[in-house]
This record gives sequence, structure tokens and C-alpha cells, in this order.
Amino acid sequence: MLQSIEARTGAAIGEHWAESTPADISAAVRASSAAADAFATSSAAQRAELLRALAAVLEADREALVALADRESGLDLPRLNGELDLTTFQLRGFADVIERGDAHAFIDDAAVASAPPAGRPHLMRVRVPVGPVAMFSASNFPFAFSVLGGDTASALAAGCPVVVKGHPAHPGLSRCTAALAQKVVAAQDLQPGVFQFVEGDSVDVGVALVQAPAIAAVAFTGSFKGGTALAKIASERPRPIPFYGELGSVNPLVVLPAAIAKNGAELARTLAASICLGAGQFCTSPGVIVVPKDAAGDGFVDAFSKALQATQPHAMLSAGIRATFDRGVAQWRAAPQLKPLVNDVVDATVQAPRPFLAEVSAADFIANHALHEEVFGPAALVVRVASSDEAIDVLKAVGGSLTVTLWGAEAESDATHRLVRAATQIAGRVLFAGVPTGVAVTAAQHHGGPFPASTQPFTTSVGYAALDRFLRPVALQDAPSWLIERKGVPC
Amino acid sequence: MLQSIEARTGAAIGEHWAESTPADISAAVRASSAAADAFATSSAAQRAELLRALAAVLEADREALVALADRESGLDLPRLNGELDLTTFQLRGFADVIERGDAHAFIDDAAVASAPPAGRPHLMRVRVPVGPVAMFSASNFPFAFSVLGGDTASALAAGCPVVVKGHPAHPGLSRCTAALAQKVVAAQDLQPGVFQFVEGDSVDVGVALVQAPAIAAVAFTGSFKGGTALAKIASERPRPIPFYGELGSVNPLVVLPAAIAKNGAELARTLAASICLGAGQFCTSPGVIVVPKDAAGDGFVDAFSKALQATQPHAMLSAGIRATFDRGVAQWRAAPQLKPLVNDVVDATVQAPRPFLAEVSAADFIANHALHEEVFGPAALVVRVASSDEAIDVLKAVGGSLTVTLWGAEAESDATHRLVRAATQIAGRVLFAGVPTGVAVTAAQHHGGPFPASTQPFTTSVGYAALDRFLRPVALQDAPSWLIERKGVPC
Repeated sequence: MLQSIEARTGAAIGEHWAESTPADISAAVRASSAAADAFATSSAAQRAELLRALAAVLEADREALVALADRESGLDLPRLNGELDLTTFQLRGFADVIERGDAHAFIDDAAVASAPPAGRPHLMRVRVPVGPVAMFSASNFPFAFSVLGGDTASALAAGCPVVVKGHPAHPGLSRCTAALAQKVVAAQDLQPGVFQFVEGDSVDVGVALVQAPAIAAVAFTGSFKGGTALAKIASERPRPIPFYGELGSVNPLVVLPAAIAKNGAELARTLAASICLGAGQFCTSPGVIVVPKDAAGDGFVDAFSKALQATQPHAMLSAGIRATFDRGVAQWRAAPQLKPLVNDVVDATVQAPRPFLAEVSAADFIANHALHEEVFGPAALVVRVASSDEAIDVLKAVGGSLTVTLWGAEAESDATHRLVRAATQIAGRVLFAGVPTGVAVTAAQHHGGPFPASTQPFTTSVGYAALDRFLRPVALQDAPSWLIERKGVPC
Repeated sequence: MLQSIEARTGAAIGEHWAESTPADISAAVRASSAAADAFATSSAAQRAELLRALAAVLEADREALVALADRESGLDLPRLNGELDLTTFQLRGFADVIERGDAHAFIDDAAVASAPPAGRPHLMRVRVPVGPVAMFSASNFPFAFSVLGGDTASALAAGCPVVVKGHPAHPGLSRCTAALAQKVVAAQDLQPGVFQFVEGDSVDVGVALVQAPAIAAVAFTGSFKGGTALAKIASERPRPIPFYGELGSVNPLVVLPAAIAKNGAELARTLAASICLGAGQFCTSPGVIVVPKDAAGDGFVDAFSKALQATQPHAMLSAGIRATFDRGVAQWRAAPQLKPLVNDVVDATVQAPRPFLAEVSAADFIANHALHEEVFGPAALVVRVASSDEAIDVLKAVGGSLTVTLWGAEAESDATHRLVRAATQIAGRVLFAGVPTGVAVTAAQHHGGPFPASTQPFTTSVGYAALDRFLRPVALQDAPSWLIERKGVPC
């Protein structure tokens, strides 16, 4: 059962409606499969036109879409307008990328007339669209990681039809966006299977989608629990398929002495703002703050605590997400190793949470696996370390993260080398300034990282390399001339 | 328990010995982990020198190594000398590739001073070695897919230490090769952990290796059963890791009317030779031959059957592999849908098998999932089709394969387009001439494909792109100048 709800009050908006039935899901996948061959062989120009038309309808309906998103998510108009800008920017960005020929890039190795191993046939390594992609929208980015977000944009750019599952935390916006997309697909004379939409708040809808035999890959951004369950289902299909899951992350941020000495007070305020941005509902929200165990570190922690205490996050996305946040904070409150720093109790019926911050020793943090798990929302742990090598031990305990931030690594030394090495071993993105919240859409971006940040750490779900997830390499050996002349364009 | 055995007679060579204990495996992984940071930060020149020195020792000890390989595998001296050439070629090839800078290639996106989404920080996408790689040798290529084969070469080239598990079908050769590698590592003043070796014929050794927390990735070439079991273990670790498994394949070969008309008789002989090459013990051995259901097709099948009947494969690699082959053929013999074409019974105590060939209708093939499974050895099924669209249905039923071969697709048509599209949808390599047995080591090669050909179909285990499996992308945001100046070389 789906119901649009005011995020700020919990009040229902309009009537509820039924989720997609198994028959609906089968029909969506069947349509997607029927469209796959024609769409795979469409020209980059055709797909670029589709992507740009999708960006245009989002902008044309901006006012209504953003208003609806604001009611369902509580994320506020400036943020949601900015997120819509990001979404259209990336749709157009992928259009530019494929027009430049990136999807059809190929490697050509001429035949060598000689005995093996030096002798070889002509080999041309091209890339082919994998086929229908099941795409799971995220709750926390109603535009950029939702119906027409980066996963959909990159799959369509690659030449793969998508079957999008809307997120039940913004079901009205999901439907509206999907309806716009379907109108664009029809106006472009593409088969309706190029973009299909299903919806539901039970696990059954997602399971049925991942199990559908014609689905060739899955893109997922969401919770650890949901993501690991769906990844298992994808791997247990008679024919397992790639599951690109981004399951969240604690995003350690290491504050080195040089940073505190240079502008500790400003950084403390910046950090507090980053933790509360969007009520902490960013997958890149800093959750583990590593600070030296010395007087300067004490001063930083004090300033940081005060800045966080003074910040009031807005309402969370849904009552369910708020309840999960409260459970996570309650567990931290009950942990004897933690010394609370910001620890206000608020009325659980109010959707706006209070930030939570506690301090823990490096030894206790490392020993307690439960502390390495993400608490989604405006909460963080300060871990005090005696040395930069102890900071490395903290990073190793975290194990896998979308980001690690290192503040104060401007001077090269053996210690910074080791720290950078440790950071690159556990994260998909390592920052040396600024905060991890906010992910630029560029060619060099990498939004992934060792498990649990991603189930496929070599791939990214943000930036133009996201395309690579849906284009499988194939070597063509001794291809006939008509096929060579296609220069990597699938037939 | 390990025992070197004469492949041709089943006789023991020397004494048996014990497999690696859990303590041995822990020690190997510990050494590998201890060497990981230093090796990751070694220069490409250092690693190229290591790879070339490994090639040189193989050549220096060629005579003894090939003789031992011949006794343990029965693969004959010419083939094994050729395979050793391929192995040294690829070790040196990876050395050239990393010296050209491919491992440290990076993408640099300058900062843009503007509001997001166009505004962005400086981002530099580099690649970092993943860490210790567990490498499982294959039975059927005692050099090229074994201790110093492509997986080891590509992992070392990437800057990852390897813990190699030798294959129990050539345990003496595995030990000898490992001892040579360890001498080279010592002579190069590298830590012993850069190359570690374990051995065993129980599943316990492999399981312990995949479960070892410090192992960062697994490379496996072997059976469907063993590979899927280990892949599951890798995905069920507290921290799942990439499992690069190549699990075999039926390699459909489609004979189109144009090919039969042009040189059917010659192709029939070529095909018979490919099926019996190395006693059919190639992962790319053609196992499903798709032939038109017409008079010309009848003629081709007749010539092909006669050529196969006249071929005598050599002894198989081991009694166990022979027994598995016999079981597979017995199942085909018992299948009522199959009409045997070459069906000689031989003494099961003789290691040299007889080829097996049977014919089946497209409808029966498609309906019987058991017929889509590989029988490892000199056996194949002829599937008769009424049209090229029925050939496509056969390919779709196969689902995933290392290769598809299309003979006679020189003329462009809608039908060939559809056939090529179907072939690229299920295979990692599509051939238009020649036979799939034999895999050139080049940049454009792709040895992988949808499951079960590979557990990671976007990656290859042969060719220079094999390196990409062990270099994980990381985006460096606002990196300090000392780090930018390293130009992608890990610190």
C-alpha cells in the first residue's frame, strides 16, 4: 500500500493506492525486454536526445515537482531546486559523454601474422549494453538518486532500458516523474519498454524485480539491510547478474594537528553543518571524526560540540527513517564506552531530530564492531587517537566507506603517506579539503568503495564512469568488414 | 594429501606429501598482508623487473619444467613448450604495459569555480592496488593458468601480492614453479610475502584462503561446482570481496549456410581438431555446434562426424577429470532426445578417451537445461536449426559463454545483425573465423562472459585488461600538491 505523506507533520496527502502486482512487474519487465534490442542499437545521438528531453521536462515542471518533493521529503525548496539542477545537469552530461563516443569506444588490435604467442588474429574490443536494468530509487535524493537520477541516466545513456522502482517515501513524486518520462519516451517514438515504472513499499516488489529472468543488472542505492538482501537474491538467480548496490557508509574524517592549528574553529563549524546537512540524510555524511588526544584536540572537540549543539536539523524524510535514527542513537546512548557530548532528548513524535555526538577512545572504537555501523541521520562519533598510526588503525577497523576525509595533510611525510595509503585502501573517494557531503558529477568522480560502501567497489554510481556498469566488453575476433566499419556501434 | 601422478598411466611419481595446514595458510596470508603496502607503492619499473625475471627463470628451467608438466598432465611436449612460451610472453607483456604507465593512468578534472552543479572541486581519479590476491591455479594449463599464469602476472603487475594455490593435478610442477618464483622474489630484494604458495587437494585449503580476512580479491579458473562454492564463500565473508571466477562454458559455434557452401569440408576437419585439442580440455572448446537442418547441413554433419571419428585424443589430465568426462558422456548417452553420431565405448581404465558426438533438435536442446551444461573433454552436441532465428533461440538458451563462433557471417543482413547481437549478448568473445580454442594475449582480448562463463562478466582473465581486476578506482578530491605530483603512483 502506498500513501503520500507530509514529511514535516506525518499527515496523509490524498488517498492511498495499491502497489504494483506481480502481473504489473512481469508486464514491465516484458516490455523492457521487448525494447532492449532496438534500444541497444539506437544511435548515441538518439539517446542523447532522449536524455536532454528528460532534462527539459523536469525543468518545465520544476515548480510543481519541487513543491511535491518538498511536501513528501521535507528537504526544503532551495535544496530541492539545487537537486533538480544537479539531476538535469547529469542527464545532459551523459548526453554529451555519449555523443563524444565514450559508449562506443573500442580497442583495436591488428592481426599479427606469426606463430603464437606473438601471432594473433584481429581483435576489436567493443562494449555492448547489458540489457534491461532494474533501478531502485533512494529515499534521500528524490531527484538525483531517484526515478530520473544518475542510475537511470547512465543506464539509458548506455542503451539499456530501465525498470524503475519508485521509493515509497516519495511515492507521489515518483509517479509524477515516471509519467513525465513515459510521455517523453512516447514523444521520441521509442518503445514504451525503454522506461518502465513499478512501485511498492513491500519487499515483494523489489524481490520480484531482481528475480525477473530478463533483468540483466540491478542498480540500488539504499539501506545495508535491503541492499544485502537483494544482492543475495541477485547472486542466487539461476543466472546471477551484476548487483550495483550502494549501501551506505560511515565516512571517517581525520582532523590532523596541522588543520586544528591552521583554522580549527572554522573547521568545527563546517563539520557541524555537514553532519546536519539535509538532517544528516546523506550517504556521505561524516559519522566518525578522528581527533588527536591532546589539548588542541580537546579545544577542537569542544568547539565542534558547541557548533553541533547550536544546530537544529529539519524534519527527517519519513517516520520510519526517524524511528531507525532514534534506535541507532539509543544504542549509542546505552553503550558504556561512549561519553555523550551532544545528547538532547526530543519528542519522538516530532520529525525534526536533535543531533547526537559522543566520544570514544580509539581502542574501544576498534574493539566494538557495532560502532562501525552507520547511524543514518545527524549523529557522529568522535574517536580520540594518540598518533596518526592510531588513526590508521581506526580507518582499518571501519574497513569500507564511500569517503575518507583527511584535514591537514598538506605537508608530505612518511606519516601522511601511510595515512593516504590507508584512506585509499578503505574508501572510494579521499578528500583533503571541504566536506564529503556533496558529490560532483564529473569524469573523475568515484562514488563507491569497499563493502559495505558498494557491493561492486570497482564501479561508481555518480559521475560519467557510472556508464561503465551497463556496457559489457566483448572481443570481436576476425570480424567481417561490415562489422568493423560500425566502429563499436552495436548491431 | 598430495601425490604426483603420471597422467598417461595413473602411476605414482615418488612419495605423497601433506597439504598446507591452516597454520601454513595463515602464515602465507600474514606474510602477503605484511608485504602489501610496500609492494603497492613499488615503482612500475621494479614490478616490470620482477615479471621479466620470472619469465627468465621459466625459460632457464624450461627443459625440466616441461618434462615434469608432461608427466603430470599428459599434454605432450610441443603443446607444453608452446604454453611456456605463452606464459613468458604474457609476463613480459604485463611488464611492458605497466612500464607504459597503464597501471597508474589517471583522470584529472580541474576545479571549476562556480555554483554547483557546474562548480566542482579538483578531482583526480587514480587506481590503487586492492591488496593480497588469492589465486587458484587451473588443471588444464599447467603454465599459462597456473602458478605463474595470467592471474599471477596481472596481480603482480598491479602491485598486489599473491597467495597462489597450486593445482593438485600437477602438484610437483606447482611446487617447482613456486620455488623458482620465491627465489626470484628474494633475489630482487622484495619481501617474501609478495609471492606465497599453498597447496592441497581438499576443499579446506581453498575455503581457508578465501575466508582469510586479509585477502582482498580472488582469481579462480576451474570447475562450475568449485567456483560457485568459493564465490558464495567470498560473498558471505563479513567483508565480501571481489571473486573473479572463470567457471567454464559450452562455446556455441554456429555454422551458417554460406560457410558450408564455401568450405564446409575443411571446416568440418578444423572443428573436429578443435574439439579434440588437448583432449578437449580447453575452457573454450566448442561444445554446441549449430547446423542448418537441410541437405547441405546433413553433408556437413556427416563430414564432421567422420573427422571426429578418425581423431584419437591423448590421455586426460587425471583419473578424476576422466571419470567426470565419462559421467557426462554417460548422461548424454542415456538422453532419449540425443541421436549419437560418434559414440565409441573405450576401456575406462585407459586415460585416453574417445570423442563423443550426438545430434539433437533445437526444440529438444532448448527445453533441456541439462544439455546446456559443459561436458569437459572431447564431446559436443550438434543442434539442428531451421533458421538463423532458431539459432538465436539456441544461443539464448545457452545464456552465458566465454565464446560464440559464427562461421559464414561475412554478408551483412538483418539476420546477421540479429545473430551478432544475440552472440554478443551471451559471450565475452565472438569469433567470425577460426576456432575458439587458443586465446591471444592482447589489449583487446576479453576472456569472460555472462554467468557461468564468469562470475564478473565485465572483467577478463586473459589479456592486458586483466590488470583492471586488481586496481580499484579512487577519486582524490582537492589533493595537496605533493600528492598531485605523484601522477597516480600510490603512496
